[in-house]
Order: sequence, then C-alpha cells, then structure tokens
Amino acid sequence: MASTRLIVALDTDTPSAAIRVAKATTDDAYAFKIGWPLLLDAGIGIIKSISEFGNVICDLKIADIPNTNSAIARRVKDAGAWGIIAHAFTGTDSLSAIVSSSSPMKVFAVAAMSHPGSSEFINLVAIRLAKISEDAGSYGIVAPGNNPEMLIALRRATTRMKIISPGIGVQGGEASRALVDGADYVIVGRTICNSPDPHQEAARINLSIESAFKEQDKKA
Amino acid sequence: MASTRLIVALDTDTPSAAIRVAKATTDDAYAFKIGWPLLLDAGIGIIKSISEFGNVICDLKIADIPNTNSAIARRVKDAGAWGIIAHAFTGTDSLSAIVSSSSPMKVFAVAAMSHPGSSEFINLVAIRLAKISEDAGSYGIVAPGNNPEMLIALRRATTRMKIISPGIGVQGGEASRALVDGADYVIVGRTICNSPDPHQEAARINLSIESAFKEQDKKA
Repeated sequence: MASTRLIVALDTDTPSAAIRVAKATTDDAYAFKIGWPLLLDAGIGIIKSISEFGNVICDLKIADIPNTNSAIARRVKDAGAWGIIAHAFTGTDSLSAIVSSSSPMKVFAVAAMSHPGSSEFINLVAIRLAKISEDAGSYGIVAPGNNPEMLIALRRATTRMKIISPGIGVQGGEASRALVDGADYVIVGRTICNSPDPHQEAARINLSIESAFKEQDKKA
Repeated sequence: MASTRLIVALDTDTPSAAIRVAKATTDDAYAFKIGWPLLLDAGIGIIKSISEFGNVICDLKIADIPNTNSAIARRVKDAGAWGIIAHAFTGTDSLSAIVSSSSPMKVFAVAAMSHPGSSEFINLVAIRLAKISEDAGSYGIVAPGNNPEMLIALRRATTRMKIISPGIGVQGGEASRALVDGADYVIVGRTICNSPDPHQEAARINLSIESAFKEQDKKA
C-alpha cells in the first residue's frame, strides 16, 4: 500500500486489464476500487488477485434490507476485501448491519453522488446521510469530487470519518482541488485505466497533488 | 412459467439449495427472485441454471451512476435474466440507463421498502419514486407487502406498472391481503425455502390466494 492520496478505480473492460492496471500502479495507489461489473465477469476470486497489488475497496453501493446487506458484506470480507462501499439512504438499520458484519473491513457510506440524477433525491439529504453514517460507525463517506460546495459542506459535517471522492478526471473534478476542499483520498478511474501508461498517469496525478499541497503550505 | 401470482425468492444458504427449491416449485412460481449473495457464491451462470425452471428476476437493487448501472444490467441480461430490480432513488438518469440497457429484460424499480430503516428516507418519497419509474419506462415497481397503507397509495399512483411485493410471511405481510391491496405478484422467500416441502408450501400459498379472490368475487 502506497502512502499516497490516490485510489485507482479499476474501470476496465476485462479482468485481465484490471489486473494489468493494478500491477502497473501498485506503487502509486493507496487502494484499488472495483465494482459489480468486474465481480460479475471474473467472480469473487478477483478480490484476492488484486489484493496482491494493494488494498481492495469493493464499490458495491449496497442498498438492501439489513439481512441481505450483511450477507453481501460477509462474503466480500471473507474474500479478502479491505473496504466496502454501501448506501446510507436505505436507513440506519441497513447500514449498521453492514458495519457489524464487516470488521475489520472498512465501511464507506455514500453521502452524495456525482451524476446529474443525484440532485433529485440523494444529494438533498447528504448531510443527514453523513450523520447517520458516522453514528452507524462507518470508517468513511463517499462524496463527489466534482461538486466543491457539497464536498466542503460534508467536510464540515464530519471530522472523524475519512472522505473518498470520485468524479475526478473524466467527470470534471480536479484531484488537488478536491483534496484541498476536504477529501482525504481521490478516486481516479478512466484517466488512468485508459492511459497507454497507467503508472505514468498515476504518478503524474500524485505529483500534481504534492505540488498543490506544497503551494498551499507556502501560502499558509 | 406458471400463471400464478407467486414469485419465489430463492433465499437459501447454498446454490444447490436454490436449485432444489426452484426445481420443486417450478409449477407454482410465476418467477424466481435471486440476489447478490447467490450470484457471489455461484457466479453469474446460476441465472441460466435457474432459468430452466422459470423466469429469473435478479434483485440487485442497483444504485449507481448511469454508466455503471448499464454495465451491470447488460451483464445480467446477457446471462439470461428475465427481470432486474433497481433503485430509483439515485435519480431518473440512473434508472433510465438501466431501462435502455435491459430490453427485453423487465425492469422493476424500488418505490418503497419493507424494513424499519426505509421510513428514514426512501419511503418518504415513494410516490415520487413511482412517478419517475413510470416515466423512465419501468415495467414495474417493488412495494412492501407488509405495509398496506403504502401499497394502496402506490397502486393508486400507477395503473400501467406491475407491482411486486416482498415482506410476505416472515416479515409480517399476508399474500392475499397484499394482492387485494394492489400487488400483482407477491414475493415469498424464507417461508417456502425453509419448508421441508417447498412445493407443498408454495401450493398452499397459491390456494390461499385463489380462495381469497373467490371470496372477494362473491362479495362484489
């Protein structure tokens, strides 16, 4: 696990490409994020394969009743995942069920999302979702890196939880800006996965983050 | 596919038990509902195996950005599923992405849920969720069979869409009551799966439904 602020989302077309990108960016990534499409294509064993190169966060956006949520979380934990992403809008009991089935796996709850449709329901209750996530014992929340106002508001709403932020790159967010606004880690997918040299691209992002923080320290 | 109003949720501990229950209830079930725990245990090929005994509805409660939602729906459709369950809470674009990637697979959107935590957020906007589900072209909605008030309100809110209702049996709902209140199909899981004779239990439920409707016809 590299001590960077970069989570690489393995948004590739094939399991072999996901493993190739993970291997290439093992020294650049704090963690790797994988989702249902990869799990459906490769099976749950892919978690173990990618864990060879770093922490694996399963971005499953679980949103079911407590019993089913627990059943999913337990399987992913047993398969070796380091973290899991779940929804909070299904309520405190659903999220608590995941937290209690997951230890020592870290639970990140979705507080707000980055696509246009998120403004219809979920982002309207973002602060309350963050609050119940903290109360349920989540390790962190997911907050959009392409929505500075929302990210700043969520950073103010929680000091204990880590914030991880997607929406960087193709979706318009800028890594160092999101980190200054309050994210602890930024999630970058397509920009790295679609690059001819994923390691070089990830290293470039890490450098731009370091420079931005040095610049900020100078100003402070 | 039996012309009944019963969907059997294959909530079993193992893939072999799921197949055993599907085989036993093939003449009793309109469709079979399966979820992520079974897909994680058995792999996506289980959809085809269970399809030998009837329609398969994948209850995935998908709740991601449009791009990821489409990627999940396409895989499940290609694997042979007849239907898929998605959340509407993530907004119109996310749900529309599923509908446009799914045809001819039927899309059911969650309008309201059956566990206590659903009263915190999702059930508060149930009627609006049903409205965007209809506008997005969903085939049906999911509404709790153990919450008569909610079920009746949702039945009034939509005439075009089918309503499928979980929460029957262990969660407190009663099949014939839910159908009278407006459900088109009831979803029963543990009561059937945990029975020593799943076929007998499913047949008993179908009979109780028929009697209730005959009773209602007499009154009318």
